[in-house]
Amino acid sequence: MKYSFRNDYSSICHKKVLEKLIECQNEQNVGYGEDNHTLNAKKMIQEKIKNKSDVYFLVGGTQTNMTVISHILKPYEAVIACETGHINVHETGAIEGRGHKVLTHKSEDGKLKPEMVLEILNKHTDYHMVKPKMIYISNTTEIGSIYNLSELKALYKCAKDNDLYLFLDGARLASALAASDIDYSDYAKYTDVFYIGGTKNGSYLGEAVVINNKELAKEFQYMIKHSGAMLAKGFVASIPYEVLMEGNLYKEIGQLENDCANYLTKELTNLGYKFYSNSTTNQIFVIVSNELKDYINKEYDFEVWDKLNDNELAIRLVTSFTTTLDICKEFIEYIKAFKN
Amino acid sequence: MKYSFRNDYSSICHKKVLEKLIECQNEQNVGYGEDNHTLNAKKMIQEKIKNKSDVYFLVGGTQTNMTVISHILKPYEAVIACETGHINVHETGAIEGRGHKVLTHKSEDGKLKPEMVLEILNKHTDYHMVKPKMIYISNTTEIGSIYNLSELKALYKCAKDNDLYLFLDGARLASALAASDIDYSDYAKYTDVFYIGGTKNGSYLGEAVVINNKELAKEFQYMIKHSGAMLAKGFVASIPYEVLMEGNLYKEIGQLENDCANYLTKELTNLGYKFYSNSTTNQIFVIVSNELKDYINKEYDFEVWDKLNDNELAIRLVTSFTTTLDICKEFIEYIKAFKN
Amino acid sequence: MKYSFRNDYSSICHKKVLEKLIECQNEQNVGYGEDNHTLNAKKMIQEKIKNKSDVYFLVGGTQTNMTVISHILKPYEAVIACETGHINVHETGAIEGRGHKVLTHKSEDGKLKPEMVLEILNKHTDYHMVKPKMIYISNTTEIGSIYNLSELKALYKCAKDNDLYLFLDGARLASALAASDIDYSDYAKYTDVFYIGGTKNGSYLGEAVVINNKELAKEFQYMIKHSGAMLAKGFVASIPYEVLMEGNLYKEIGQLENDCANYLTKELTNLGYKFYSNSTTNQIFVIVSNELKDYINKEYDFEVWDKLNDNELAIRLVTSFTTTLDICKEFIEYIKAFKN
Amino acid sequence: MKYSFRNDYSSICHKKVLEKLIECQNEQNVGYGEDNHTLNAKKMIQEKIKNKSDVYFLVGGTQTNMTVISHILKPYEAVIACETGHINVHETGAIEGRGHKVLTHKSEDGKLKPEMVLEILNKHTDYHMVKPKMIYISNTTEIGSIYNLSELKALYKCAKDNDLYLFLDGARLASALAASDIDYSDYAKYTDVFYIGGTKNGSYLGEAVVINNKELAKEFQYMIKHSGAMLAKGFVASIPYEVLMEGNLYKEIGQLENDCANYLTKELTNLGYKFYSNSTTNQIFVIVSNELKDYINKEYDFEVWDKLNDNELAIRLVTSFTTTLDICKEFIEYIKAFKN
Repeated sequence: MKYSFRNDYSSICHKKVLEKLIECQNEQNVGYGEDNHTLNAKKMIQEKIKNKSDVYFLVGGTQTNMTVISHILKPYEAVIACETGHINVHETGAIEGRGHKVLTHKSEDGKLKPEMVLEILNKHTDYHMVKPKMIYISNTTEIGSIYNLSELKALYKCAKDNDLYLFLDGARLASALAASDIDYSDYAKYTDVFYIGGTKNGSYLGEAVVINNKELAKEFQYMIKHSGAMLAKGFVASIPYEVLMEGNLYKEIGQLENDCANYLTKELTNLGYKFYSNSTTNQIFVIVSNELKDYINKEYDFEVWDKLNDNELAIRLVTSFTTTLDICKEFIEYIKAFKN
Repeated sequence: MKYSFRNDYSSICHKKVLEKLIECQNEQNVGYGEDNHTLNAKKMIQEKIKNKSDVYFLVGGTQTNMTVISHILKPYEAVIACETGHINVHETGAIEGRGHKVLTHKSEDGKLKPEMVLEILNKHTDYHMVKPKMIYISNTTEIGSIYNLSELKALYKCAKDNDLYLFLDGARLASALAASDIDYSDYAKYTDVFYIGGTKNGSYLGEAVVINNKELAKEFQYMIKHSGAMLAKGFVASIPYEVLMEGNLYKEIGQLENDCANYLTKELTNLGYKFYSNSTTNQIFVIVSNELKDYINKEYDFEVWDKLNDNELAIRLVTSFTTTLDICKEFIEYIKAFKN
Repeated sequence: MKYSFRNDYSSICHKKVLEKLIECQNEQNVGYGEDNHTLNAKKMIQEKIKNKSDVYFLVGGTQTNMTVISHILKPYEAVIACETGHINVHETGAIEGRGHKVLTHKSEDGKLKPEMVLEILNKHTDYHMVKPKMIYISNTTEIGSIYNLSELKALYKCAKDNDLYLFLDGARLASALAASDIDYSDYAKYTDVFYIGGTKNGSYLGEAVVINNKELAKEFQYMIKHSGAMLAKGFVASIPYEVLMEGNLYKEIGQLENDCANYLTKELTNLGYKFYSNSTTNQIFVIVSNELKDYINKEYDFEVWDKLNDNELAIRLVTSFTTTLDICKEFIEYIKAFKN
Repeated sequence: MKYSFRNDYSSICHKKVLEKLIECQNEQNVGYGEDNHTLNAKKMIQEKIKNKSDVYFLVGGTQTNMTVISHILKPYEAVIACETGHINVHETGAIEGRGHKVLTHKSEDGKLKPEMVLEILNKHTDYHMVKPKMIYISNTTEIGSIYNLSELKALYKCAKDNDLYLFLDGARLASALAASDIDYSDYAKYTDVFYIGGTKNGSYLGEAVVINNKELAKEFQYMIKHSGAMLAKGFVASIPYEVLMEGNLYKEIGQLENDCANYLTKELTNLGYKFYSNSTTNQIFVIVSNELKDYINKEYDFEVWDKLNDNELAIRLVTSFTTTLDICKEFIEYIKAFKN
């Protein structure tokens, strides 16, 4: 196999992260995230977001979503998401497992809009129904689309006007930072809680949860431990952030990923291929014939996203911190060879 | 500070584990534990336990306990543990958070005995009370004591005679393997589920769950994901086991820890110190005066375990894969200096 | 006010039920449903269904749905329902509160079809998603429509072919028994669990849960108590069934309700009114103008079901065991007075 | 059988309650506790407690405990109770089923004391353990003992000093009101939430939850529905309270029960019998030989509470609203016949 475009979590970690581990290997640190690496990573994030928000380092996305959501909601309260939202589709009922209904709305572009939120609110008006109390969105979204700043502000205003919390899943925040006009500090201003994903952006694991709403930060460590989400070796989750938050590395990783994906989009478009969704981020969804799919599969790995008809399907190509333009050029040449 | 005896999770990982990460850094692997490292680590464990049990790699102890227990029990079923059991005291209600009562019995030596189990069973006889369905034990225990093979067999027999499952928490299994006559294969024979702890035995994280009871293995991957316990980069949790299961490394780590702890016990006994519990494993609990505590604290880190009276307390000293006999000798010299 | 068509739970109970209470008032019975009334009511139901299914008497619909569903499903398993299903919309997240996702499909007529079930199954194929394991339907449905026997058989076949359980909510089973060709014994044959609703069919409370699938009946009393659903005075929930199951009383109540509702439908149709859904059962949904709504409201109570446009809305009229043809005739005269 | 002293829930209801049902049988009321009977019963209770607390009518004790406790506690918070507490022993894990640990303390007399609470607080000091947040007590207790006003005040002060809520289970509050110096208004002053039990004090079902702490009353109806605890026919649970709260009926029922029980205690003491606990309320625990037990059992029903040794056991005799002094006198004569 030449390369895998299957996902952005196929390699252990960015080489600088590994160098940092080597550098720290002989240290002794206290446990449970009370160590100096965690303290330092927290400070570096606070500088980036220009805010004194609380920061906690969890392990993965589903764990983070379930811990944050069940920390904030009362038993009868629900979270609003797109029908395609990760918490709705791909978490094996982890949110419901913590007792909460996920209320959904269809969205063609994978993005939630204030009018969708209002429509759900208008349907949930008394105690015979769950009480919507939180909006959940992801940037980038599940299908590679991206919120811009005015959209984020509008959702946050909608949340505050209606006594809701806004929680942003940043599993792919590096790509989002590079593709959109929303900066770190905007995420701190226009969400109650968000996270800076590590697993899909150069770390071997880790999601940095940033709690901007002070009221929600209270006793979050109890909730982390209660949810089985506290690492004895807390520094294992925070050390990578000391690396990723250094200078612009995190955003640069996103930029490289986007550049590679955009290159693929441009070239494939030139070759006449169509796309399943509009994406300027590190996930693209190309429509291919069965024959082309099989041809690509001989040398490249990817995910089949959707079967469109008897002869066409959408495949997902994901770029990551290990992707290079050379790899992408080689891929395009490989595709051209099929065309000829 | 000269050294920290505070716990066995203060350093990132054994140097061979780090070397393995470096070796694999340029690979691309599939996600969610379906990769070759995970397959290989699973095979290595199956060879050690001489059994085709299913093996899954989770992140930490509380997460593992909560995932396994809630996978096995029905909503109205309960787990039996020592009053000092980790699930009862130090998991912030994670087991109850998944819906299950922990039924406890006092035990001076931190070990559960069949007669304690029977006493609890005799009290829980109808549908107005929870139904005890699982026994939870740890080897080594929370206070450093250790089950031997005949004790394990007796508990397993008690479990099977009474239609209970036996689940063994192996957070410190390396030390237990070195200190007791129970071998890997015995754990596979005489428990329904157990785990081979990584976090406290040389890995940066990870607990290898071994499900010996085939009926219980069914759909466990659903439960892992549902519990927020599935790593996108599954190989990050399994790669360390390829190292630790190679030859006798895992048990050797335990042996070194025990040797260091036993050396400390012997020398401190010779110096006239008393102990809070009998331990032949990597946690020892020395009784010291307030003055000695303060003196030690100038150069060494440790945990204050219990306040015994106005002038005496029990401190816990834990050895780990980074402890050496030289470090211990230096510590004893330091103590002697206080005595003189 | 002349009469309330708001719902079928506005009066205490059928007069024969009250007579039975008076008759039994000086008895002493054992608690928790182990008394002779409960035993007798169970037997009477077993005769009706021609089956030795287990029978338990719970208090209300939401409680019954949550207790049955959480008894049967594993934590990561989900239940399939119509989007309009009571468990999805009107139970304040009680099912999710017990940890389970409700997977829904739109349905114009409020009825679930095998092809909808299959569509959901086809989308849930691996451990990243919940595992659909149960079909939930109601007869009559939330919008007054009704399953016939061939539809029930087809759904049950679909369930068995796909290793699913079929659970039928019979909150309004009296009306269903009278309106459809499905008899008591068919419900026992073609569902795993169903219930014979008491609250909405002449009792002051109570739902008789019939567990046809023996495997599911095991330890259900534990689950009832665990769910806070066990009455100390169990006989209070079963005594009404001794009355309702006597002869054909239960079905006769449904027949009377349906006759009244069908009379209203026929007369209103003759008067030129349209309906929101097709119903041959005890709930009908008439489309009225704002003016007519206000006019009716002066003398009758009802529920506004949906706002259709600026001048039209659907109102729900429900008949119950207290409704008579005379009451309905008077209502039609009242409506005619508006027309003239 | 002459009479059952097995429990105080063996008869349907007080005859005045039944008369009230008959009186109201032809009414139509709105559902879900928004009717006038519920409003009226609430007002009558507010007059009794001299406070504008919110009042809700639930069905049974376990349901009420689980609904109130899970309404108030966050997921990682725990409730403190006596080891003998109903929530700890006899609710089949309903509290844990809602996610909360029950922290217990042994108590010889079945009553919780401030020093026991403090001992538990002192052991729960960081986020590795659950956070104690509520005190749960019952009046009368599980073993028939009773709190007096100074004890209640001391516990409430302890709760407020330590940022805990005090919740009082009043399943047997009628007997408690008659046996202790705590009046209705004191329960409103010195608890955050308590309930006035119906099931065991003359109603066919029902527990009136009184929420004195305004902060805790918010959105309680959502929690009732979410917990499967909301009756469609809400008035069925509140109508009995219109009867029981009229004049002094409720307390008179308790007084009669206590008088009967105290008569039994006095006479049995005179006959030389010993008791298992001190009780001035409607549950007494007599120590009898196996032979006497069998003799009594021929004509009377009761519960065997505890086996003390090979020849002695404690049996529980419970008086209820149906017990009379004549019944008790006949019982004593029957016992005397054994002695002779």
